[in-house]
Amino acid sequence: MKTIILEGKPIAEAIRRDVAERAGALRDSGRPVALAIVLAGEDPASRIYSKSILKAADRVGVDARLVEIPADGGREDVGGSIRALSEDEDVSGIIVQQPLPDWVPATVVEEIAPWKDVDGATDASMGRLFSGRDAFAPATALGVVEMLAGSRTPIESSHVAIVGRSAVVGRPLAALLLRKCDRGNATVTVCHSRTRDLAAHTRAADVVVAAMGSPEAVRGEMVGEGAVVIDVGVNRVEDPESEKGYRIVGDVAFEEMLGRAAAVTPVPGGVGRLTTAILLRNAVVAAESAAERAR
Amino acid sequence: MKTIILEGKPIAEAIRRDVAERAGALRDSGRPVALAIVLAGEDPASRIYSKSILKAADRVGVDARLVEIPADGGREDVGGSIRALSEDEDVSGIIVQQPLPDWVPATVVEEIAPWKDVDGATDASMGRLFSGRDAFAPATALGVVEMLAGSRTPIESSHVAIVGRSAVVGRPLAALLLRKCDRGNATVTVCHSRTRDLAAHTRAADVVVAAMGSPEAVRGEMVGEGAVVIDVGVNRVEDPESEKGYRIVGDVAFEEMLGRAAAVTPVPGGVGRLTTAILLRNAVVAAESAAERAR
Repeated sequence: MKTIILEGKPIAEAIRRDVAERAGALRDSGRPVALAIVLAGEDPASRIYSKSILKAADRVGVDARLVEIPADGGREDVGGSIRALSEDEDVSGIIVQQPLPDWVPATVVEEIAPWKDVDGATDASMGRLFSGRDAFAPATALGVVEMLAGSRTPIESSHVAIVGRSAVVGRPLAALLLRKCDRGNATVTVCHSRTRDLAAHTRAADVVVAAMGSPEAVRGEMVGEGAVVIDVGVNRVEDPESEKGYRIVGDVAFEEMLGRAAAVTPVPGGVGRLTTAILLRNAVVAAESAAERAR
Repeated sequence: MKTIILEGKPIAEAIRRDVAERAGALRDSGRPVALAIVLAGEDPASRIYSKSILKAADRVGVDARLVEIPADGGREDVGGSIRALSEDEDVSGIIVQQPLPDWVPATVVEEIAPWKDVDGATDASMGRLFSGRDAFAPATALGVVEMLAGSRTPIESSHVAIVGRSAVVGRPLAALLLRKCDRGNATVTVCHSRTRDLAAHTRAADVVVAAMGSPEAVRGEMVGEGAVVIDVGVNRVEDPESEKGYRIVGDVAFEEMLGRAAAVTPVPGGVGRLTTAILLRNAVVAAESAAERAR
């Protein structure tokens, strides 16, 4: 079997083109997309990620700005800042960078207004999503659905085994795939670290989504002939032969899928490529809804 | 194989004893359980159900009262009433009866404070539950977990096939069974009307939960030898031989399970028997948490 390598790049490009066009239309109508990225504390990785969103936003004509809240000896009010952004009519979407520093309670994200929650971070969004209603979902989970749609997998009649039950990927993805729509209606099995005979579950599935954070844990023999394999993992493994001393691998043993799976996403270069583009599309959707409501 | 009939009654009685004891302790400490049942409009079935909760509450020493909001030509404010109950320190739990009449927006339930949402009706509760955190869940979904625990099924290592993806049973049950705890950690497959080859999924499972609302749709040959079968369905089917002209059946062909399944719940007399007891237990938990916070 010839295995298709599902690259994220062309799908990300198509999303960015769509985002740029819609953002332009909103700007022309006087209701531009305005994305606020809240960065509390000094986490360097969060800062790098924030900057990459700003850069990507700039490329597609989305106004994004960083709202920095440094630790200030107990006088900082992250919840209050988020509430103000939620109430500000000129802000269409809000992202609160994770992980939050110790001095910020995890519940501050609940201050994000549901219609601005473009990262699907609040309980309200998760609840709506899981009830089967319209809601913003985390970008990585949406990225898996985009990949499946891009692979021309008929999601509707598929049996999807999701390996991993995290609140940002496995769980919201299950919710997305169970929705009553043409990118939903899948039969979904959620597996995890406590699953007995994991291989039996993954082998029985038409689609395997690996999202447990275990380097190359999904092996060739765990996947049925002709299955579609989506790899969400991003793991750093030691590699003395590499210049940096490490390399990035997914949760899937990529080489073992070749000749066996119908399609597989690479890491890097797969699902991860879509995240920022989808986040920006969510911001556009939020701005479009706000414009709709304002009419 | 001898099939065990899992009756709801003894489990419900054990829950009621526990509830009565805890409600008594709360009353003695001056912080009694106080459950408010909001009934908007005139739905007769909702009224009957409300009365049955009041009666059951009375039997276990829980103070419950009906808050009736009749249609009043547009002057009624159901949301405002719920908000007032949410803010009232003397109210520990709130149930809003479904279905709501046409003149009440479905979103009014979101006015229930999360710590009083004993019916698990709000997006916030569903979101918390589905993220894997502590939250109130709908009583029927909790009833299935009680039944499984009562059957001595080791939930942790089981593969559970849930048939039906409703927002009050299938979905919250999936969330409950995926939690990281000894009544969770199951591997869960959610099937539904659009599932291809349903029988293959149910036959592969250790536990089959039928919650799709289709009379006797789960047949003997769809269940593996030795499986545990939980029937959540309540369907009225015509029966000229019965006095009423109909009889109540579940979603499982009960007779066909005998000699095949390890255990099966009857309808009526199974999961349905637990609902009110569990609802009252949720009310007790809410009152205990409030007492804890007040310390």
